[in-house]
Amino acid sequence: MLSYINVKQDSHFPIQNLPYGVFRTENNPSPRVGVAIGDYILDLSILEQVGYFKETVLKRETVFDQSSLNKFMEKGKKAWQEVRRVLQTVLHADEPKLRDDEKLRKKAFVLQRDAEMLLPVKIGDYTDFYASKEHATNVGTMFRGKENALMANWAHLPVGYHGRASSVVVSGTNFSRPQGQVKPADSTTPIFTPCRQLDFELEMGCFVGPGNNLGEPISVDNAEEHVFGLVLVNDWSARDIQAWEYQPLGPFLAKNFATTISPWVVPLEALEPFRVAGPKQDPEPLPYLKTSKPDSYNIQLEVYLQGAEMECRQLIAKSNYKYLYWSIAQQIAHHTITGCNLNPGDLLASGTISGQEKESRGSLLELAWRGSEPIQFEEGEQRSWIEDGDEITITGWCEGDGYRVGFGEVTGRILPALSKVGDRSSAEHSIVK
Amino acid sequence: MLSYINVKQDSHFPIQNLPYGVFRTENNPSPRVGVAIGDYILDLSILEQVGYFKETVLKRETVFDQSSLNKFMEKGKKAWQEVRRVLQTVLHADEPKLRDDEKLRKKAFVLQRDAEMLLPVKIGDYTDFYASKEHATNVGTMFRGKENALMANWAHLPVGYHGRASSVVVSGTNFSRPQGQVKPADSTTPIFTPCRQLDFELEMGCFVGPGNNLGEPISVDNAEEHVFGLVLVNDWSARDIQAWEYQPLGPFLAKNFATTISPWVVPLEALEPFRVAGPKQDPEPLPYLKTSKPDSYNIQLEVYLQGAEMECRQLIAKSNYKYLYWSIAQQIAHHTITGCNLNPGDLLASGTISGQEKESRGSLLELAWRGSEPIQFEEGEQRSWIEDGDEITITGWCEGDGYRVGFGEVTGRILPALSKVGDRSSAEHSIVK
Repeated sequence: MLSYINVKQDSHFPIQNLPYGVFRTENNPSPRVGVAIGDYILDLSILEQVGYFKETVLKRETVFDQSSLNKFMEKGKKAWQEVRRVLQTVLHADEPKLRDDEKLRKKAFVLQRDAEMLLPVKIGDYTDFYASKEHATNVGTMFRGKENALMANWAHLPVGYHGRASSVVVSGTNFSRPQGQVKPADSTTPIFTPCRQLDFELEMGCFVGPGNNLGEPISVDNAEEHVFGLVLVNDWSARDIQAWEYQPLGPFLAKNFATTISPWVVPLEALEPFRVAGPKQDPEPLPYLKTSKPDSYNIQLEVYLQGAEMECRQLIAKSNYKYLYWSIAQQIAHHTITGCNLNPGDLLASGTISGQEKESRGSLLELAWRGSEPIQFEEGEQRSWIEDGDEITITGWCEGDGYRVGFGEVTGRILPALSKVGDRSSAEHSIVK
Repeated sequence: MLSYINVKQDSHFPIQNLPYGVFRTENNPSPRVGVAIGDYILDLSILEQVGYFKETVLKRETVFDQSSLNKFMEKGKKAWQEVRRVLQTVLHADEPKLRDDEKLRKKAFVLQRDAEMLLPVKIGDYTDFYASKEHATNVGTMFRGKENALMANWAHLPVGYHGRASSVVVSGTNFSRPQGQVKPADSTTPIFTPCRQLDFELEMGCFVGPGNNLGEPISVDNAEEHVFGLVLVNDWSARDIQAWEYQPLGPFLAKNFATTISPWVVPLEALEPFRVAGPKQDPEPLPYLKTSKPDSYNIQLEVYLQGAEMECRQLIAKSNYKYLYWSIAQQIAHHTITGCNLNPGDLLASGTISGQEKESRGSLLELAWRGSEPIQFEEGEQRSWIEDGDEITITGWCEGDGYRVGFGEVTGRILPALSKVGDRSSAEHSIVK
């Protein structure tokens, strides 16, 4: 399947992918929806305007001249499939409609390097799961010892918690090192300090399309009907703040200062050729969590770190989405079983994706084993935690036969902690409307 | 201070209060903003239309002909003060402007019994704190013993966690008993069952008006500038589901099936005469949490239970907002200290408000001491947990000199669990757009 748009073999964005994002350009600062194809963005607001989707269930509705994907996401699977058919058709090498319409092509294609990618979704609620057995085991081993590594509930349900939706930001957002309350082991009382154990977490997340009514759970067999697509997620974590605050109600400030997602949402349909079974589940889940088909994906994941003094980024972890024990369908069935309602635009993240090999650990906490085995770089530097100026990049893709369905990247750089924060005498204060 | 609208002495809604809500009527099903006065609602969309607020900073903007308070809330303290001045003036017995405009009066006043109250705010993120020392101590004693009742962090920071915003509903919403996974003490494996330990939690919550930018904490001294007003909150809790799921990431399904709030948001300014100091804080908080003025409120709280077979509701708990250890200002300063951004419409709940007396415990878990001391009712019934058909009502008010500034009620009835939920063979499934 080839497009008349040139797509390099290692590009993440061939015609088999067509992920959705929200972008703007200098010439047109109005946010709008596009799909990535090769080095370009195809501006769907332009195609919509000239009626390219009028034969789909969307008819003449304005769903792409929007500042978020929500309106398209809530339309459901039929609309997503029909729009994807239109796009794969009009981008196909043999289809003259758009290919030979020089005037429209000029308007509708924007180089990615000329565009600014925005947060693609207006996120209502954000949930973070803990679906990797290897990650939960690693963390449990470090904090409670090998014998008590996995909590008794872990193998029976997808453990998860509510995260903070307001601080989910798009790739490329840099931020200052968070500051807060921690209790050093050698102190009897807590202190206020810039975070000393700043970490990333390699995760992926799915966006909910159509939701469910309060009180009406989604069954595990129907759960995927509710999923629009997937993104890369970096769930930044302040480990020292977390260690002090998290009992008994879970992580709070240690996570809510920022969560970064990739700008391109890969539709579930594009991942279909890469569907695989996840790990065998033992013990057998309760009926409401039992799935009847393979429900994971073979997605290769990599994490890079580039320090301020490093010439290029360094690979620090390689993992795979398929290592996750609990699937998206199980996460959704569990999330709604007591009656909780999901809405279009909700984000469900997987939790850190670690594998069995040391190199597949999805956080510095695990890679450097809580600081006891720092990562050594060739240039002589080492890392137990993220340092000021470090940029963390996560990338991921499915390897097809001669093509890749990829997620692009999610990246972010840590700036030094702001001075005066937490100092009550400071007059600095801002009210934002 | 008297209004020409008749207000009974024990009414929650005298001219000193003027809480904001969103309502609709049979004659006009369009949701709009009103204030409660006596048995009436004053329809602010009507006053706005005829220019009553044109001299305020709102000028001619449409902020009350809205389906939520968010637009008004984001305007900030100056707008809130000015609108309140206008309303207290035009409702005053001596002010003829509205009093003598018969035609406008007829349009602008609606009897509360003729109106349907709606969820007043579009809630972005919902956070639940754990701010009562007595509640945390009671729960800790039951689950970990008297010696280890309070966690080490509790007295140093307002422990809190992210809740589920989508399932916050308005008073009067009834719902089915949640079902889910629990592990009975006498079972080696978990089971799927309707919740057997359903509970309420007596809480109050504050709504955020103007927020802050990501990375820019709100100082404790400025925190109240960000608060629009307070509501009553019932944080329904499934204790058996919670006990099995909550480690290590905190409560999830045990709380996210429903949280109910009262429909009237009492502005912070109306509570000013009832400002009191909270409990003395020992140890002294870190500077970022240190407040320099009394920052609690004397709000009397009551909880009633009415079973399906009971002739009238029974008082089961009496508490007071002033018992809370951590104040709203401290909650906001802590919530934002690592950089988390708050937005207009965010809800911060207090956590269960318990006092030192047995009757002041704010949950059945505490009142019936985990089932070991069931509440006995005169009619012979008893309760350890909420039973099907039970209606829980929370009310609260400040007692002034000859008047009350009240919050009305927050109420909800539990219906029997739905059949077929969790049964994978069931074909029931709904997709909501």
